[in-house]
Amino acid sequence: MYEGPVQDLIDELGRLPGIGPKSAQRIAFHLLAAEPADVTRLQEVLQKVKEGVVFCDVCGNVSEETTCRICRDARRDPTLVCVVEEPKDVLAVERTREFKGRYHVLGGALDPLSGIGPDQLRVRELLARIGKDEIAEVIIATDPNTEGEATATYLVRMLRDFPGLTVTRLASGLPMGGDLEFADELTLGRALSGRRAL
Amino acid sequence: MYEGPVQDLIDELGRLPGIGPKSAQRIAFHLLAAEPADVTRLQEVLQKVKEGVVFCDVCGNVSEETTCRICRDARRDPTLVCVVEEPKDVLAVERTREFKGRYHVLGGALDPLSGIGPDQLRVRELLARIGKDEIAEVIIATDPNTEGEATATYLVRMLRDFPGLTVTRLASGLPMGGDLEFADELTLGRALSGRRAL
Repeated sequence: MYEGPVQDLIDELGRLPGIGPKSAQRIAFHLLAAEPADVTRLQEVLQKVKEGVVFCDVCGNVSEETTCRICRDARRDPTLVCVVEEPKDVLAVERTREFKGRYHVLGGALDPLSGIGPDQLRVRELLARIGKDEIAEVIIATDPNTEGEATATYLVRMLRDFPGLTVTRLASGLPMGGDLEFADELTLGRALSGRRAL
Repeated sequence: MYEGPVQDLIDELGRLPGIGPKSAQRIAFHLLAAEPADVTRLQEVLQKVKEGVVFCDVCGNVSEETTCRICRDARRDPTLVCVVEEPKDVLAVERTREFKGRYHVLGGALDPLSGIGPDQLRVRELLARIGKDEIAEVIIATDPNTEGEATATYLVRMLRDFPGLTVTRLASGLPMGGDLEFADELTLGRALSGRRAL
């Protein structure tokens, strides 16, 4: 469509998730008009990410050092581990300011159709960690969708034989600020079956 | 929020137009998991665009050589020039396959509030081109919005003194496939005042 490097840039941008042809074109022309220093900064962070992103050897979260900030933090409860799918889920839980334990990032959820089994996730590392450290409770915080639920079921089966270990799952129910009328059946059903005495 | 280079990448991506914090995060984690070769390709096209994008010395469109493919094409009518705001507008007109003339890319539209006056656009180049080449008709195809209309009005005033030059503007009216009921007042008003005898 366009000539030479501009079209190459549009093509490469269009390969990124959530960027369609129109957005790719818009970003490309933005970069064309941008200061060279801005483009250089983008190239540099790409370079750093390609070279330098380290994953924490304890929890698997993205990290600057071999062990991440949370796993190094002595004030965090080492007996409580929250198992999530992705680094962005760590961030979501951190934002609640409710959790003072540590994390374990699986790197995804079970999805046999896409070839993601337990060996593609950091399940073995989780079992090793529970066998080695003094962990009292594992909170399974995978996503409340098909893959996340399957992963949770699988983990419960793997973890129930550890003596003295409590395994919990995040509560399902109505989202705060929501409207009963607009809740889907599945969520409302979960909210009903999970009702609590006041 | 995240540690080190990952957050830097999210910040840089979030500066691009149309990419919010959520998309930036999604793209960053996609790039983290991508093959190094994919990231390298993206870096390379950025480099090429930074170094190598040439604008056609005749029409101002993005180009691989000093003069772009369309301006070099002897089959295109050199007496007919379509004036557009941006390179993407050239593409839009080309897609119609209705236009066999050449283009002139202004590089934007008049927008005094953003400091864009005639000197920031390629207006002088257009006047020079009309004075030098055998141009019979200039079609003004700026966007049908405030800035585009202002630019069209300005150009008409600049061009009306060239002897023997016809200046035309793209027709305004109802979009094809549209529905009269849902047309806004301005569009319907234009369609009425621009009605044609059958």
